[in-house]
Amino acid sequence: MQSELTADVEPIRFVGQTDGTLELLDQTLLPVELTVINCSDVETVWEAIKKLRVRGAPAIGIAAAYGVVIGLQTVGDEDAAAFWKRLDEVTDYLAGSRPTAVNLFWALDRMKRVAHELRDAGKSIAEIRVALLEEAKAIHAEDRETCRAIGRHGAAELKDAANFLTHCNAGGLATAEYGTALAVFFTLQDDGKDLHVFVDETRPLLQGARLTAWELSQRKIRATLICDSMAAQVMREGRVDAIVTGADRIAANGDSANKIGTYSLAVLAKAHGIPFYIAAPISTFDMAIDSGDEIPIEERASEEITHGFGKQTAPAGISVYNPAFDVTPAELIQGIITERGVISPVTKEMVAQMFAAE
Amino acid sequence: MQSELTADVEPIRFVGQTDGTLELLDQTLLPVELTVINCSDVETVWEAIKKLRVRGAPAIGIAAAYGVVIGLQTVGDEDAAAFWKRLDEVTDYLAGSRPTAVNLFWALDRMKRVAHELRDAGKSIAEIRVALLEEAKAIHAEDRETCRAIGRHGAAELKDAANFLTHCNAGGLATAEYGTALAVFFTLQDDGKDLHVFVDETRPLLQGARLTAWELSQRKIRATLICDSMAAQVMREGRVDAIVTGADRIAANGDSANKIGTYSLAVLAKAHGIPFYIAAPISTFDMAIDSGDEIPIEERASEEITHGFGKQTAPAGISVYNPAFDVTPAELIQGIITERGVISPVTKEMVAQMFAAE
Repeated sequence: MQSELTADVEPIRFVGQTDGTLELLDQTLLPVELTVINCSDVETVWEAIKKLRVRGAPAIGIAAAYGVVIGLQTVGDEDAAAFWKRLDEVTDYLAGSRPTAVNLFWALDRMKRVAHELRDAGKSIAEIRVALLEEAKAIHAEDRETCRAIGRHGAAELKDAANFLTHCNAGGLATAEYGTALAVFFTLQDDGKDLHVFVDETRPLLQGARLTAWELSQRKIRATLICDSMAAQVMREGRVDAIVTGADRIAANGDSANKIGTYSLAVLAKAHGIPFYIAAPISTFDMAIDSGDEIPIEERASEEITHGFGKQTAPAGISVYNPAFDVTPAELIQGIITERGVISPVTKEMVAQMFAAE
Repeated sequence: MQSELTADVEPIRFVGQTDGTLELLDQTLLPVELTVINCSDVETVWEAIKKLRVRGAPAIGIAAAYGVVIGLQTVGDEDAAAFWKRLDEVTDYLAGSRPTAVNLFWALDRMKRVAHELRDAGKSIAEIRVALLEEAKAIHAEDRETCRAIGRHGAAELKDAANFLTHCNAGGLATAEYGTALAVFFTLQDDGKDLHVFVDETRPLLQGARLTAWELSQRKIRATLICDSMAAQVMREGRVDAIVTGADRIAANGDSANKIGTYSLAVLAKAHGIPFYIAAPISTFDMAIDSGDEIPIEERASEEITHGFGKQTAPAGISVYNPAFDVTPAELIQGIITERGVISPVTKEMVAQMFAAE
């Protein structure tokens, strides 16, 4: 299958009109198999989100929006009551696929709001159906543009760097097209730079090895896979000009929660005099949270560590600590690259200023 | 099998007299299976060393010394010529099992020297055979005492600490009984301390998860397994009083080569104000090397990272950097715990002083 993998693969693609289908790249099979799932019913979309075949907050939102269009294909334009009943059914059903995914609810709410507004404006079911597909495409396009803008700002900030290190997967698989941290690398490449990126494998779930290494290879960016414990060594060897990672949630003061191991990298970067950057859309900021101290650390199942690859590699009954992410304090972050520009220095005031900007 | 695992298991045990057998715990099956290999011929000893069923420099030396006794069982006491021919055969054969293991050659040379000295002193083959078994037992006992002494010095140094972190496996499986870094924990436990140890899983080969977690569990020391990338987080949470690891090779100035990831821990320890210790016998020092800069970094096979558990987890053809170890500079080491005492501060002068001491 490997030979068929090309950079032309779009992780999320809607084909056709309101009676069309959604194509999703099955991320659970990467990097060994390239399989596209053809979703022609909402159950298939639900299953893809549930089983992490599509993952990453923006990507889940986009897939769910298209899922609404597909779910509505079971009712005709002539029966308005059935259409509205089905809209509620479909959105409730999709919302249950990943009950903690904020982008999922946001996208579903946006789809419903558009439908209701057009109903109130007297539009026909056929017209509303077309508008919903347009709205899903708009969500998709907006995310694509956000990623592109993050890439542009990051590439401008890091135009003198050529040797990078990243952690986990903040790429096109999690978003529309370019990703966040990887958007910086893709844009530098578009600008003609010859780059090299060290990719942390990112235990326990190996998103770096499985997804980021794959995305960089696809785009012919030179990449070298390392274990997380080797990052300090490559920094010491002088092979890293800058580190860029994504973020899951950013507090009002710039403290950034991201995949476990990110904080470690930021401390090591400081010790080696290497700038550490976060790349994330403005939607990642949670301005209701003053600092990272308020972000609870989610713990995940022990088996991810003790049986990481379907095989027992630790003694039965051993205690395990498996925090899903850590919080990097703002003072260790050189800059936060957003679609509106780079926040640097990372302070409460600078964050507020960028958040208020258009 | 798990339920049969007990702290009474000795990784290396010689049973009987000169016609006895060597029992080796098969470390490749840990922690899932407890299997003891009964070696009644030298080929089985050779295979155990070759296939890493017994591993760790001191343990290899001890196993090889007993292997000489077993190899000589194929010749009788009456044929001296056959005995001496066989001694050369057996030592050459065992030396080929792990061609880069210094302790292996050291132990084999020591066995041969004893045999030759006794021959020159006019001893009989029967007497020499008995003396060789005694010599193998002496090598075993000396290593046991070295580990015990490291444990005593480490426990005295760290008597006020209760929360530890360690990396890789520097325990009884690699040595006789107590190990080096783990000897410190075992001795503190013997002294009645209630300890807790965070165990880095230690990618790529997971010696922490497979071996250290098992050894600590066996001795009922509270242990928590983490991924290597989580060490910074547990330090930040204030859950580590001191870090203790082993070492593979130490330069005259105290720079210490150890399993990849050790340097990362030392940098992180410094950033969190946590003392970082190395525990290693005096034999680990290579006084011919001025500093860690002269220690070449061995690179290992890509597959350890890309196919770590018999399963492909990275894209085909991805570049990989897999250094087997890294070098922690002396200035990041609070102390080096040896069988003669603790070297602290770690400087060229203090190392020389301890090395010269008896």
